Amino acid sequence: MGRNIYKSDLREFKFLIEDQFHQAKTLFEHPRYSDCSAEIVDDVLQRAKKFATEVLGPGYQEADEQSCHLVDGKVQLPSSFPEMWSRFKEEWGDLSSSSGGQVTDLPPFIMQMLLEMFMGANPSFMTYGGFCLPSSTLVEKYGSEIQKALFKDKLATSEWTSCLCLTEPQAGSDVSLVDTKAARQADGTYLLTGEKYLISAGMHDLTDNTLYFVMGRGEKSGSGTYGLSCFIVPKYWVEEDGSLGEFNHVECISLADKMGFKGCANTHLTFGKNGQCRAYLLGDRENVGLLQFLTLMNQARISTGVYALGMASSAYYNALAYASKRIQGKRFHESFSATASRVNIVEHVDVQRMLLEMKSKVEGCRALIAKLTLSESLLKTFEGDEAKKTEATYHQGLVNLLTPVVKAYISDQAWRICELAIQTCGGQGYLKELGIEQYARDIKVLAIWEGTNYIQSQDLIRDKLGLGNSSKLFQIYKSEFESFINRAGDFPNFKTEFSRLQESFEHLETVLKTVHVWVRTKEMFKIPAYSTRILHMMGDITLAWLLLEAACSASSRLSKGEGDKAFYESKVTSAKFFIRNELPRTKMVMDIIQDHDSFCQVDSPVWDSLLTGVESL
Amino acid sequence: MGRNIYKSDLREFKFLIEDQFHQAKTLFEHPRYSDCSAEIVDDVLQRAKKFATEVLGPGYQEADEQSCHLVDGKVQLPSSFPEMWSRFKEEWGDLSSSSGGQVTDLPPFIMQMLLEMFMGANPSFMTYGGFCLPSSTLVEKYGSEIQKALFKDKLATSEWTSCLCLTEPQAGSDVSLVDTKAARQADGTYLLTGEKYLISAGMHDLTDNTLYFVMGRGEKSGSGTYGLSCFIVPKYWVEEDGSLGEFNHVECISLADKMGFKGCANTHLTFGKNGQCRAYLLGDRENVGLLQFLTLMNQARISTGVYALGMASSAYYNALAYASKRIQGKRFHESFSATASRVNIVEHVDVQRMLLEMKSKVEGCRALIAKLTLSESLLKTFEGDEAKKTEATYHQGLVNLLTPVVKAYISDQAWRICELAIQTCGGQGYLKELGIEQYARDIKVLAIWEGTNYIQSQDLIRDKLGLGNSSKLFQIYKSEFESFINRAGDFPNFKTEFSRLQESFEHLETVLKTVHVWVRTKEMFKIPAYSTRILHMMGDITLAWLLLEAACSASSRLSKGEGDKAFYESKVTSAKFFIRNELPRTKMVMDIIQDHDSFCQVDSPVWDSLLTGVESL
Repeated sequence: MGRNIYKSDLREFKFLIEDQFHQAKTLFEHPRYSDCSAEIVDDVLQRAKKFATEVLGPGYQEADEQSCHLVDGKVQLPSSFPEMWSRFKEEWGDLSSSSGGQVTDLPPFIMQMLLEMFMGANPSFMTYGGFCLPSSTLVEKYGSEIQKALFKDKLATSEWTSCLCLTEPQAGSDVSLVDTKAARQADGTYLLTGEKYLISAGMHDLTDNTLYFVMGRGEKSGSGTYGLSCFIVPKYWVEEDGSLGEFNHVECISLADKMGFKGCANTHLTFGKNGQCRAYLLGDRENVGLLQFLTLMNQARISTGVYALGMASSAYYNALAYASKRIQGKRFHESFSATASRVNIVEHVDVQRMLLEMKSKVEGCRALIAKLTLSESLLKTFEGDEAKKTEATYHQGLVNLLTPVVKAYISDQAWRICELAIQTCGGQGYLKELGIEQYARDIKVLAIWEGTNYIQSQDLIRDKLGLGNSSKLFQIYKSEFESFINRAGDFPNFKTEFSRLQESFEHLETVLKTVHVWVRTKEMFKIPAYSTRILHMMGDITLAWLLLEAACSASSRLSKGEGDKAFYESKVTSAKFFIRNELPRTKMVMDIIQDHDSFCQVDSPVWDSLLTGVESL
Repeated sequence: MGRNIYKSDLREFKFLIEDQFHQAKTLFEHPRYSDCSAEIVDDVLQRAKKFATEVLGPGYQEADEQSCHLVDGKVQLPSSFPEMWSRFKEEWGDLSSSSGGQVTDLPPFIMQMLLEMFMGANPSFMTYGGFCLPSSTLVEKYGSEIQKALFKDKLATSEWTSCLCLTEPQAGSDVSLVDTKAARQADGTYLLTGEKYLISAGMHDLTDNTLYFVMGRGEKSGSGTYGLSCFIVPKYWVEEDGSLGEFNHVECISLADKMGFKGCANTHLTFGKNGQCRAYLLGDRENVGLLQFLTLMNQARISTGVYALGMASSAYYNALAYASKRIQGKRFHESFSATASRVNIVEHVDVQRMLLEMKSKVEGCRALIAKLTLSESLLKTFEGDEAKKTEATYHQGLVNLLTPVVKAYISDQAWRICELAIQTCGGQGYLKELGIEQYARDIKVLAIWEGTNYIQSQDLIRDKLGLGNSSKLFQIYKSEFESFINRAGDFPNFKTEFSRLQESFEHLETVLKTVHVWVRTKEMFKIPAYSTRILHMMGDITLAWLLLEAACSASSRLSKGEGDKAFYESKVTSAKFFIRNELPRTKMVMDIIQDHDSFCQVDSPVWDSLLTGVESL
């Protein structure tokens, strides 16, 4: 085992719980979370940090060096993972499941804080257990009684792991091309044949069994996404009495050699190639697979944002720590002074610019995830409560709207944060020893997997924002935004910031109107030219909003003379910096879209000229 | 040896020579380049591409896999390098030196095209011979007669290599902290003691000898940069009769393990640790080392831009080639149509957005380097010509001004281009096999070495732009710019583009005025908060200008119905795309600077609040 490089600041979580989202405390008063309290949460977070830095973190760089290997059909994981798994399972394996021990049911709002630390400390390792809880929920929601009995608790307690199998060589972003076949047998089970590709954490011996949730196609099903069904394929067959049967012919034929995330085995799997591969159809209904997978995929998209945040945050803290110690050069305005002393590079204004961009983005992304998971947490307290139906619709809407933003905006910003973190540390930043370069390599995949960031922007613009036609979800977003903006009068010190934020929101509304005009004028082809930028615009606005909200909370503390003065002051700095230096992008993007160019005109396709001579390059 | 992944398009070079910079042809009429002709250049470029793809390229991914290793004090390079070196030396070793064979003196304008292909095909390999020619020039310029006799030709013909030794563990960006000591001996040579750190290509057996150009300090020299001297330290001592003497105690004590550029041995060197290390003082004058190094460092900064361009360009072409073959999904506006066919992803507008951002930046950066090297080439024809003194000052000014832009802007954009190239290829982009992820890893160091990009922006704003005080160099830049803008009337089709470009230039002028106000109001500390962005602003404007210039050349061809129609049309597309989608940053940055915030106020330092609790992260 190596050295831990993971860094985090528990004050950040405390601030979210006690200040910015102080209404979260009411969660603990709900029966659903009755075994939770502020003290218990405080203790859990401290234990989680200890676990992240003492157990998970020391295996981070080692996993990158060792990588995974396919030896005689078996996948060898980094050497620290088996021991790490048993400790993880013991201490955290059934956290947040409703089946386990003392404090088992943490609200997602708190869970994401733990996961941020775990995923930031050892992202590759966390992929192995990552789908346990979501797929346990999936089985609970859609599974037959026998499936629930056989699989739910095994997954909820991390006794077995779960693996999500969607992608095939020819079916990446285009899920409708999935070709895995399932033939129904007389006993109601299926025989599966097909290949799955780039499947994360697809093969390992950490657990006695693995359940593959496989997207496939029944024999009588049509082509396209509506012919897809979800199958549960145990690596070792599970008899109806729960006993383990024989090997079920799920085999790994190769591992992908990747830029990063090397401790995560990205497998090329075959099903039923060298023998029968039996499967249960999830919930006994064919052709509803994509709908069933949606919960799982949405959870995976949120997790992607948390992975990105966990690593980017640690990259920032590592850069900050380095900048606080490295002495180099004089300050710019004293550079020709013979008597001026050399300073820690944190005193160089350009370094501060980089640190503040990282800091404000990391804190803003954390607040964004907190906002989403607070709504998720509230939703759980509304379950089965008819009186809360309207509120539930409202919060579900927020969750749905923010999910693609969390996935795509945070993963894109995390890459940028790593660029700055490396740059802050100069030559050291480029070396493996410091570890920041590994964060960059690990983070890059997050913009690709679980639906590329362009796919997220399609989902946002088309399905969530109704192609600019003032969708219900946008109305929810707007009413949340306005209830914040209406507090401007209470914070005269932030008058400028509130007004900039308001202006940016108007830029977004203008853009959405333009999008809707394109729909009416049959120019829909223009939308994908800008959808990625529109998603980023929404991310920028939401971050500015949440950072300013944080600054308001902090300034209330400051004016009362309470607490950690420097910490609260730095919250004000984050908001001011982001609003003045990053938020101006919204106006630029609006102007670009208003002045949209013709590169995407279908009648004069640019790709023709791009491609001439491509063969001889 | 592996598979070559390097891709390039010779039409690009042809276009620069024959169209955009057609005045370059007059170079061949000058006696200096009399053994050059359009035909010979064409042949050389074709041979260079062949060499890049057939000899250098196949070792690119292998060098990354094998890396360099320190075994018993010796540095093992990737296994393909020795054979590659002998072929390189034979075919290209004395190119552009005045000492060698048939067509030896290529103008820098052409040389950069060759180097773009070589550095793009195998950047690590190219570091070993990279300083041969520049340091041969250095010896010619500053060396004593005996030094010229001993070293100049050995370097010019790549018989021996040269290695630049500046950085020490405590002296990175802050060169003034260099601590290597040199004690003058009775015979006029020196004894050197000290350590150098992160020295690229610092130890190898490709050649019989290596000459280290070491920045050190004489015994009587003061501290700071003015006490620095440049020493020539042969790995094996060179007697005055040219014969090789004994080992000179330059030793490698460790290699840096890095994110990329793994075939380049980044060495920690000791001088005179285990025995006497003798050195020649360059040109027999102490305390002028930094001035002497300047030529070398400027050349290294330009080369950094060429490395970045070479790799980023190939990353773009690889992404383009992938996009032209990968079939996935339907077009956005047809996505719900059952009859619409699936398309190559190049037909997806979001993919086109990424390809066009890459394309326009790659082409713009190539034109930027061409502009700089055309001036360099002209300067060589002016040498010793009193009548050309004014012109020489003009072109030297342009070279000096553009050098930090070439270094910093291109290396930053190259990282962004790789991000887009990976993203275009989705999951495949993240795999090692495709090779694009290696370009990203290799490129990241370019923003750091040879002076971090912030150092470049300091150089630009303070030393080249005179802190906004309408410097002579800016006047030269402006007059070049205006002579282009004045051609607007000839191109009515580009009226909008010319006017956008003009506006952007005014944004830059406004910003420079603001900078100068800060100097007068003693607020110089604000400058480094924005200097990186000002450098990027200048890069954006220069690219837009050169891309529009290219579009004008192309449209002249198009209107005459000459040549490769699709290629010329794509030049117009590049300019239009960049000006509409990238150039708007100049207004945003101007607005940000006009509305500058207080994070850099010296009287309320932000770093204090940033650093509270840093120890416990």
